[in-house]
Amino acid sequence: MNIIITGGAGFLGQRLARALLTQDQMQFSTLTLADVILPSAPLADPRVRCVQADLGSQAEVQALVGADTGLIYHLAAIVSSHAEADFDLGIQVNIEATRYLLEAARHQAPGCRFVFSSSLAVFGGELPELIQDNTAVCPQSSYGMEKAVCELMVNDYARKGFIDGRVLRLPTISVRPGKPNKAASSFASGIIREPLQGEATVCPVSPSLSMWLSSPATVIDNFIRAAQVPAEAFGASRTVNLPGITVTVAQMIESLRRVAGDEVCARISYQEDESISRIVASWPGRFNISRAQALGFVQDADFDAVIRSFIQHDLQGAQQ
Amino acid sequence: MNIIITGGAGFLGQRLARALLTQDQMQFSTLTLADVILPSAPLADPRVRCVQADLGSQAEVQALVGADTGLIYHLAAIVSSHAEADFDLGIQVNIEATRYLLEAARHQAPGCRFVFSSSLAVFGGELPELIQDNTAVCPQSSYGMEKAVCELMVNDYARKGFIDGRVLRLPTISVRPGKPNKAASSFASGIIREPLQGEATVCPVSPSLSMWLSSPATVIDNFIRAAQVPAEAFGASRTVNLPGITVTVAQMIESLRRVAGDEVCARISYQEDESISRIVASWPGRFNISRAQALGFVQDADFDAVIRSFIQHDLQGAQQ
Repeated sequence: MNIIITGGAGFLGQRLARALLTQDQMQFSTLTLADVILPSAPLADPRVRCVQADLGSQAEVQALVGADTGLIYHLAAIVSSHAEADFDLGIQVNIEATRYLLEAARHQAPGCRFVFSSSLAVFGGELPELIQDNTAVCPQSSYGMEKAVCELMVNDYARKGFIDGRVLRLPTISVRPGKPNKAASSFASGIIREPLQGEATVCPVSPSLSMWLSSPATVIDNFIRAAQVPAEAFGASRTVNLPGITVTVAQMIESLRRVAGDEVCARISYQEDESISRIVASWPGRFNISRAQALGFVQDADFDAVIRSFIQHDLQGAQQ
Repeated sequence: MNIIITGGAGFLGQRLARALLTQDQMQFSTLTLADVILPSAPLADPRVRCVQADLGSQAEVQALVGADTGLIYHLAAIVSSHAEADFDLGIQVNIEATRYLLEAARHQAPGCRFVFSSSLAVFGGELPELIQDNTAVCPQSSYGMEKAVCELMVNDYARKGFIDGRVLRLPTISVRPGKPNKAASSFASGIIREPLQGEATVCPVSPSLSMWLSSPATVIDNFIRAAQVPAEAFGASRTVNLPGITVTVAQMIESLRRVAGDEVCARISYQEDESISRIVASWPGRFNISRAQALGFVQDADFDAVIRSFIQHDLQGAQQ
């Protein structure tokens, strides 16, 4: 069996690849990392194959999928602020590339498992206190709209038996290592990561804003779980609101203070950015996760533990 | 101002055209009826322009929309059982043609009003007793998926200010005049229309099934209302569950008995069709319509009145 990860050069793609290569619950012969820039292999392992592919080209997507493809993790996307700024690019990559991949899977690897990375950004508008599994989506960003469109397509392809789809709505991920990106939620990692690296950072949203967060490690555990849930356990919908933890921005900074001290926290200043604030404040901060937990998905203990794990594993100079 | 109706050769398109031409709340200079077969003008009126256009062709869609286009009614669609049988055609017409039209409106008539005809078929799966405005969609047919995808796109195009979108989720329409079609709900008109015309008919679903119905006349009133609601009245979502009435199939037939007698009802026989039953039974039968009513949308009095109106206006030989 071949596993494909799109967005394989990205942070989550690389980390998922490493996790797949070092687990032994799922057997596979090839792991294809595909991205618009050539991915590197996260580990020296003969099963890894790195492919440069433009998912905006249907021919390149078709070339990626073979009869031996048993599992596709579709992580590639234009992130939220970028898709908001470049509407046409967002549609092309976030919708069209997903359709190409679904069509390639349907015709070239029928029935293959297809794990789609969606987002809490599908929610917005007038939200209940607690998001339920049957709360309607109402995206307030083009990124959220595009993810919601793909959720519907993955579900229908699964209902028709073309693929075996699973949709994970990811919480905001914190703490991401590396550099800021064009996600509106980039600050949710930046306000922890930059001060820990001795750098000043600006928090662009109100400290009272509630966030729905997951650590990278927990998201990766849940990606692996997603491929293992029996299809019939999902019921009428293949879409799952992944577990997260509810933390305000102020609480995130208090966690940082407890773990790393006042001096580190003093590197954070506040300057509201209206376009970031508008997008992020439209996302919900609290979910009912009982269905996700029943399906075997997991959550972080608390944000202090998330920061400690980041310091131990991901901070510049830390031992992997 | 030019008004365009796609699906202009269809039953609703023709009836909407007639209603627009005979009302005086909205002024317009041209009414373009577009369809894959050349529509005929429902009335001799110099404002009517009939165009044969394949909406599956982006060039033909672009040619349809001009700078003077102020309002588009997008009714054209592959109906439910047809889209379920021919998945690729459903995607092409129900999603791609809508995208072409949204793009044409965005670039050639920016800000124009865009009324999209969606359907209760977006709902399915585990449904609450009463559908609320914030009940999640969970389509159990490709037609429902395609409508839900377009709802999201129309909403995002409206949020971006590309168009002024309005989405109406239509109840099942009964009683349609004319011939049966490939909609899974075709029987909801057939079990009334055929017996009244002296013909035998087969009911393919359980008499206990609850339907959410609207007469054609009420849907047309609501289409005209949709173009007049102030944009700011919609709030975060441009999507409205249109009012209907809840009637079981058995109650529909009892209405027919009261209005037309036992002899007419004796022309109905029962033979469950599993594929029709599966689709129609996945649709909800009861909605909270308070938001729709606050926006000025209307409902029928009861199903007896719907049948009487059909006999008076639409039955073969009736005076229009």
